[in-house]
Amino acid sequence: MHTIQLLALCGSLRRQSYNRAVIEALQQLAPAHIQIVSADMMADLPLFNPDLEDSGIAAVDAFKQATAQADGFIIASPEYAHCISGVLKNALDWLVSGPEFVDMPVMLVNTSPRASHAQAALREVITTMSGHLAEEACLAVPLLGSDLDCSGIVARPDLAEHLRNALQAFYLSIGTRTATV
Amino acid sequence: MHTIQLLALCGSLRRQSYNRAVIEALQQLAPAHIQIVSADMMADLPLFNPDLEDSGIAAVDAFKQATAQADGFIIASPEYAHCISGVLKNALDWLVSGPEFVDMPVMLVNTSPRASHAQAALREVITTMSGHLAEEACLAVPLLGSDLDCSGIVARPDLAEHLRNALQAFYLSIGTRTATV
Repeated sequence: MHTIQLLALCGSLRRQSYNRAVIEALQQLAPAHIQIVSADMMADLPLFNPDLEDSGIAAVDAFKQATAQADGFIIASPEYAHCISGVLKNALDWLVSGPEFVDMPVMLVNTSPRASHAQAALREVITTMSGHLAEEACLAVPLLGSDLDCSGIVARPDLAEHLRNALQAFYLSIGTRTATV
Repeated sequence: MHTIQLLALCGSLRRQSYNRAVIEALQQLAPAHIQIVSADMMADLPLFNPDLEDSGIAAVDAFKQATAQADGFIIASPEYAHCISGVLKNALDWLVSGPEFVDMPVMLVNTSPRASHAQAALREVITTMSGHLAEEACLAVPLLGSDLDCSGIVARPDLAEHLRNALQAFYLSIGTRTATV
């Protein structure tokens, strides 16, 4: 079975973030042929400055390299003031002008399904950056107020199955695209 | 004549940014009763982390204090991938939960009037944060491709008048609000 590598971006730096908890749960639940790497270097990225794009900043280079190596992105973003977080937009801004993200399959994770503005903005940004939204894999997990952490999510059979199914759908979607592109 | 102080946020860190050039031109053209302070500390803000909101980070405290002292905001943002810049969103994220920005009059500056996505997103964010858009003062200055810097803008009588009028409209709008609130 072909192995794929996914890069997971968490739009919140909060330690007890539901978005981070879902990413960790996806990592635990993923079958062996789906490797999920966390884009932790996002927290070390400087604020985007077009003048510094090719100046060899370590975190920027690491993020671009991880993007180039990824078969797909998992993006989990909180909604702050009806938009995606500055943390996530800043990371994406560093990728806008390069070739690494073009045609990248993207699976979105929304932990607050009643918040729709950030997801809409994110879809517009990803499409504009020539990414490919894998609609069949996008995941809505209503966690707000649930107090669930990674272990709590994994221990809930309904949620665990939901996450596994989304990963499998993303895997198949990426395989189909690779076969037809 | 009552003096007001405006805080100017530039969404781009590029040195030769049209958004920065317009802010500098506004500073040069402003009459004595309108003081415009540049929010340079935006470049020093760390990536927003809710866990660090009350941890005494110098740039964060300076930004909140400058916000509290401002009678209004001037916001000039570039559009990156059909959204506002991460730099700008990150700065606003630091203000979301505090009292400093509530009911703040805001004048938007758009240097690429054909780009409408970022302006729409910014309007949604500001309204959600309980800011007040001063529609009569919002400024569209088509500078993209013009090669104009601050001096070039100030030297163009039509542009200089356009900027002066917007500032005057903003001044009157703030005065009216102060009088009626």
